Amino acid sequence: MSGSHLPWFQGGGRDVRDAEAYEFIDTETGPLLSSRSLEKQVAYEEGSTIDWLREEAAERERKRAMRSQRGLHGLLALVLDSAGMWLVIILTGVGVGVLGAWLDVLVKWLGDLREGRCTYGFFYNQVACCSGLDPGEICNEWQSWSEFLHVNSIFGQSLLQAAIYIALSIGFAGSSAVLVLTYAPYAFHTGIPEIKAILSGYVLDAFLGPWVLLIKALGLALAVASGLSLGKEGPLVHVACCWAFLLSRVFKQYRQNEARKRKLLAAAAAAGVSVAFGSPLGGVLFGLEELDTFSNDSDVMWRGFVTSVIAAVSLQYIDPFGTSKLVLFQVSESASTWRAFELIPWVFLSVLGGLLGSLLIKLNAAVAAYRRHSVLHEWPIVEVVGFTAITAAVSYLVVFLRVQSSELVANLFQECDPSKPDYHGLCNPTAVWANVFLLILTAMAKIGFTAWTFGMMIPAGIFLPTIAIGACIGRAVGLITQGLYRTYPQAWIFSSCPPDPTVRCISPGFYAVVGASAMLGGVTRMTVSIVVILFELTGALSHVLPIMISVMVSKWVADAFGKDGIYSIWIAMHQYPWLPARDFRDKGQTAAHVMKSAGSLVVISEDGQGCIVRELDELVRRHSFRGFPVVYGEQLLGIVMRDKLRACIEGLLAEDSAMDRKCTFLPPSRADEGGREIVNLSHLLEEAVLQLRKDVPLELVVNMFQKLNLRHILFSQEGKLMGMVTKTDIVWLLTADSAHAGALADR
Amino acid sequence: MSGSHLPWFQGGGRDVRDAEAYEFIDTETGPLLSSRSLEKQVAYEEGSTIDWLREEAAERERKRAMRSQRGLHGLLALVLDSAGMWLVIILTGVGVGVLGAWLDVLVKWLGDLREGRCTYGFFYNQVACCSGLDPGEICNEWQSWSEFLHVNSIFGQSLLQAAIYIALSIGFAGSSAVLVLTYAPYAFHTGIPEIKAILSGYVLDAFLGPWVLLIKALGLALAVASGLSLGKEGPLVHVACCWAFLLSRVFKQYRQNEARKRKLLAAAAAAGVSVAFGSPLGGVLFGLEELDTFSNDSDVMWRGFVTSVIAAVSLQYIDPFGTSKLVLFQVSESASTWRAFELIPWVFLSVLGGLLGSLLIKLNAAVAAYRRHSVLHEWPIVEVVGFTAITAAVSYLVVFLRVQSSELVANLFQECDPSKPDYHGLCNPTAVWANVFLLILTAMAKIGFTAWTFGMMIPAGIFLPTIAIGACIGRAVGLITQGLYRTYPQAWIFSSCPPDPTVRCISPGFYAVVGASAMLGGVTRMTVSIVVILFELTGALSHVLPIMISVMVSKWVADAFGKDGIYSIWIAMHQYPWLPARDFRDKGQTAAHVMKSAGSLVVISEDGQGCIVRELDELVRRHSFRGFPVVYGEQLLGIVMRDKLRACIEGLLAEDSAMDRKCTFLPPSRADEGGREIVNLSHLLEEAVLQLRKDVPLELVVNMFQKLNLRHILFSQEGKLMGMVTKTDIVWLLTADSAHAGALADR
Repeated sequence: MSGSHLPWFQGGGRDVRDAEAYEFIDTETGPLLSSRSLEKQVAYEEGSTIDWLREEAAERERKRAMRSQRGLHGLLALVLDSAGMWLVIILTGVGVGVLGAWLDVLVKWLGDLREGRCTYGFFYNQVACCSGLDPGEICNEWQSWSEFLHVNSIFGQSLLQAAIYIALSIGFAGSSAVLVLTYAPYAFHTGIPEIKAILSGYVLDAFLGPWVLLIKALGLALAVASGLSLGKEGPLVHVACCWAFLLSRVFKQYRQNEARKRKLLAAAAAAGVSVAFGSPLGGVLFGLEELDTFSNDSDVMWRGFVTSVIAAVSLQYIDPFGTSKLVLFQVSESASTWRAFELIPWVFLSVLGGLLGSLLIKLNAAVAAYRRHSVLHEWPIVEVVGFTAITAAVSYLVVFLRVQSSELVANLFQECDPSKPDYHGLCNPTAVWANVFLLILTAMAKIGFTAWTFGMMIPAGIFLPTIAIGACIGRAVGLITQGLYRTYPQAWIFSSCPPDPTVRCISPGFYAVVGASAMLGGVTRMTVSIVVILFELTGALSHVLPIMISVMVSKWVADAFGKDGIYSIWIAMHQYPWLPARDFRDKGQTAAHVMKSAGSLVVISEDGQGCIVRELDELVRRHSFRGFPVVYGEQLLGIVMRDKLRACIEGLLAEDSAMDRKCTFLPPSRADEGGREIVNLSHLLEEAVLQLRKDVPLELVVNMFQKLNLRHILFSQEGKLMGMVTKTDIVWLLTADSAHAGALADR
Repeated sequence: MSGSHLPWFQGGGRDVRDAEAYEFIDTETGPLLSSRSLEKQVAYEEGSTIDWLREEAAERERKRAMRSQRGLHGLLALVLDSAGMWLVIILTGVGVGVLGAWLDVLVKWLGDLREGRCTYGFFYNQVACCSGLDPGEICNEWQSWSEFLHVNSIFGQSLLQAAIYIALSIGFAGSSAVLVLTYAPYAFHTGIPEIKAILSGYVLDAFLGPWVLLIKALGLALAVASGLSLGKEGPLVHVACCWAFLLSRVFKQYRQNEARKRKLLAAAAAAGVSVAFGSPLGGVLFGLEELDTFSNDSDVMWRGFVTSVIAAVSLQYIDPFGTSKLVLFQVSESASTWRAFELIPWVFLSVLGGLLGSLLIKLNAAVAAYRRHSVLHEWPIVEVVGFTAITAAVSYLVVFLRVQSSELVANLFQECDPSKPDYHGLCNPTAVWANVFLLILTAMAKIGFTAWTFGMMIPAGIFLPTIAIGACIGRAVGLITQGLYRTYPQAWIFSSCPPDPTVRCISPGFYAVVGASAMLGGVTRMTVSIVVILFELTGALSHVLPIMISVMVSKWVADAFGKDGIYSIWIAMHQYPWLPARDFRDKGQTAAHVMKSAGSLVVISEDGQGCIVRELDELVRRHSFRGFPVVYGEQLLGIVMRDKLRACIEGLLAEDSAMDRKCTFLPPSRADEGGREIVNLSHLLEEAVLQLRKDVPLELVVNMFQKLNLRHILFSQEGKLMGMVTKTDIVWLLTADSAHAGALADR
């Protein structure tokens, strides 16, 4: 319908959808942008998708210009350029490492603050306060609040402790929420979905601003310390990317090229993971698998690797906790070998992990959708405070919930060792069933908490809670198996165990690791990176096999309930322009299935005597499509991008009487009749127009969008325009099936 | 010229080049194939390139058919399918592990055989023979040949030893060459270049046959044992792929789908590296970086990971040498930290590594080209025998050359340790300069030997020799630095060292590691995989930094003398249809630069009344192009692939009088005039014709070929056929600059 009253328009278009919703220019900034895009042709509006081809072309231009300089001068320019690039890489790595260390310290201190304080220095955390004691010596420097306030009655003590614990938790979480809401709304949640979208070409600079960096780091520390069921891994990736983005602004080569900027961000993301788990390789593989960057570009992979190693090294160098351990949860040497029969509990664990994983995803998605459309949407801070109160109250009652998740996990991964202090009677052989009950309770509570917390108005990662849940279940299963073994040591199934029961045959700590990997597999659907990250914990190669098996099985089970991992779900809910890498299988449809037929497109059509500048101007003003196909008669000439066209028209408007000048898109060779006064716009036609026949299988089209980062494909038959498919259509196609698609999209 | 006398042909073509040389059907098998391609439409001729789109489509068809089965039946089919897939994966992994272990044992035994024999069992190698002794006790069970033959005079002894050593070396190498030449010529060389080509879609089944597997494994063991300057890493990858290929023939799902087969091969290759170095992650990253498989398909990466872990585990389980060490050269804990000033010698080492690396490449390429066009080409066995004699003679004189490269490297990587026996006086502080001289001599000799050996008619890998060369140089530099420190302990540059000189400040063993990584970087131009592989040796994270730096620097230096690594060079020399992943930068050319214009193509042109079957038949017989564009008047209809067309024609020939029937490629809708008797071939037109305008930048074209695995792109302007670019053209374009391009190509 739109514009069909203009003679040289064909058809119209279902604007709201066609306009690539999230690529709309929001109305207030829209008009203003024009001036910007005049002075700088390649300026992307917030919310648009970058044109990789254009970016790479620009980069090539830059390099070529540099190389073209003769002799020493040119060489120097090249060297400086590459030096600058590596400087940024190194700065990113170091910065991320420092940020990570700083966060660790802050979190530990705030967390301990809920229990008590250090007598000789308010700013020491418990460990630092009690350091330098002989083993066995009790630490008097660290006072619980009740001691500090000289409350003597047992009842009073516990009441006071609980009150302070809950109050501080609420205080931390609340202030975190306030910070986020007031200064940087983008700083909430994990950030990985957005990072994925951005890396794939989505433009969302506000998401990486300096304020976000500051608030997210601070808010994250507060949120984690508040004891809510959330982790710092995902947000750390976001923080790392913010930092890299900040740096990229300083260096011209990055500032001016979106593609390069994204490659740097990819490296930063890898560094973030590397710091979060202390596994550089895990970071790189995470980048490969989850963010699927680096694909077919080994240079980028190399940079990512360098960055994450540097980050890890600087973290280790700073060494926040005096234990020169890099990995998050050091695992004591578990039993050097495992027996075949253990595969039974492990597979059981994996299935469980898969089920609970997809359950967690579904719960979380449902909660997010509900939150969006309920009154909670208006009162985010109230929600955070209220839910923190509940969490804190419950957590204080259950011993395993009270401590930080990371501490819990670390202890669950540990094998029982007479020489070490027993953690809350976890190794007490008489209390097996009590422990099992407690662990399962903890796991269930955490699932509920996590499903709700992940998505509240605070920075929150889902990695650590998932690991904690898995570890609890795993340890429980391990304890059960061990219990069975202790009761029936002679049963044929245990025949492979050493005869004398004093030798440990079953190591529940490793069961916890298996459980964690299974749960992770179920929630994130990652494979290699999980195994690598957990491998660096256990060390022994032979223990990689069980981990691999559990990840694989749980992924299978979980996939049966929906293919998407938690991050993909959130992307689908936001409807970011991101294409899942998983290969799409059509049911025999062809491109025609998604194609918008030529009739429904807004087309600039050249009938011999060209069109009028004014009309083009109106066209550009009326429609927010990214580009307009140009046809001559029925023949497809090419496509002209909206921003280019607008910039050019505004250029023309400078001269007077331009409005009524004629213009043509025909190549000068063919359009030179008409002579001077006709404006030739053929140079605006995009140079790389991809044309396909509309009866190619749909899969192929999706595949090309995925691999080539295209924004649109034109379909032609013998040169006639048949229709066009934009990235949006593909995103819609791929996310259509997922339950809450678009639930959180702003429009 | 060709066929231009047929009315419905346009132009001709420079056959020799256009026919995608290596994709020729060699004349003897050509005719025979026809029958094959009749009974099975998708049969690739040896030497052709597979059509990924077609393969994937076929795979989708299969899956869809399976899913379409209703209820339990369908589910079962799916489960069985996936179970079969994993079974193959596991079998591959285990098989590769066993092969690796078996090779190790054989090599060690053969190698030791050159020195002596075990009294109580001929088939024990030295280590096994002398096992179970108390430290300090001398091993009497192992007799050198002179002892065995009771030769007493010193002179006689050494003469005899030398004679046997050299004789056996020649015997081993010679028999290896005979085996290769007689039974499996494809088994010579490393095989990685071919693997790369195959993984990218080149069809060369003979290269992976069972005979190749057997001969390569056996020949490799002999060649390595002969003490020639070669390694087993590369060939092991080839062997692994042969094994996987063998398995793939057993399982229908793989046998019938080239794409799936290649994904399995990729996994096998990763497993090969994982076994060769005992680093599963190194294997995966090698697959990512060097073979650049797995790109944007995390499933394949996951399978590769699983395979290589399984392979590594089964190797460790078999544990050929009783040391339950997996990694090839265990490194004793080197100094926990390194000092800043050490960067100077390390950077020096890296530059050296880069220079020597590219020198080695150039030498090797020159030798290969010379061998091909000299008399040596006729006498491969003579060459092997002769060169082995030289190598053995020289090696016997130089102590570091006499031992197996792997043993040498292992010792060079070790730090000096008073508690351990000193290796040939390497740690003798008084003999520093003698050692340095000896090491440099060894390195030089090895460079020469390797440059010649790598390419002789025996299985030979270049990884280990490169590492050895680097290790020698590194150790030498380390010794020099240490010597300087010992002489001037007070020099300001050494101020960061601990005051008392008894504490080790400089650890030459680690210098050897750095040297090895630098050399590897220079020769292979890999980055991440090298670092990961060497990282697993040293362990300490802080030591990754120097390794990274050295790899990076040496790569820079080497790239200045040519961008291609040794494998790319060999691919270029063979002119395999493989596109290097490195991004290509044009100098402003457009596609027109490589495009074959429509005039020079053999085109099937539809003028209204269609063409005659006989003419098509002649066309197919005369021309060996993979495909023919079809035009109607000037309009491009699409492209028809040669094999499809031929199969269809042969189908027609079954009926009589078919030869004179008319046929058309117009869609039935438009071609129904003429009615029944006209054969409609429109279904043969390839469904996914990619069309571009001929003025797109050349880079973009190359990029699309690289990312989409295309075989050709058609260029059209407003529907008119402008020209076409085939993968060949791009390969020619990319390899044109390298010195010896096509030097070894068969035609």
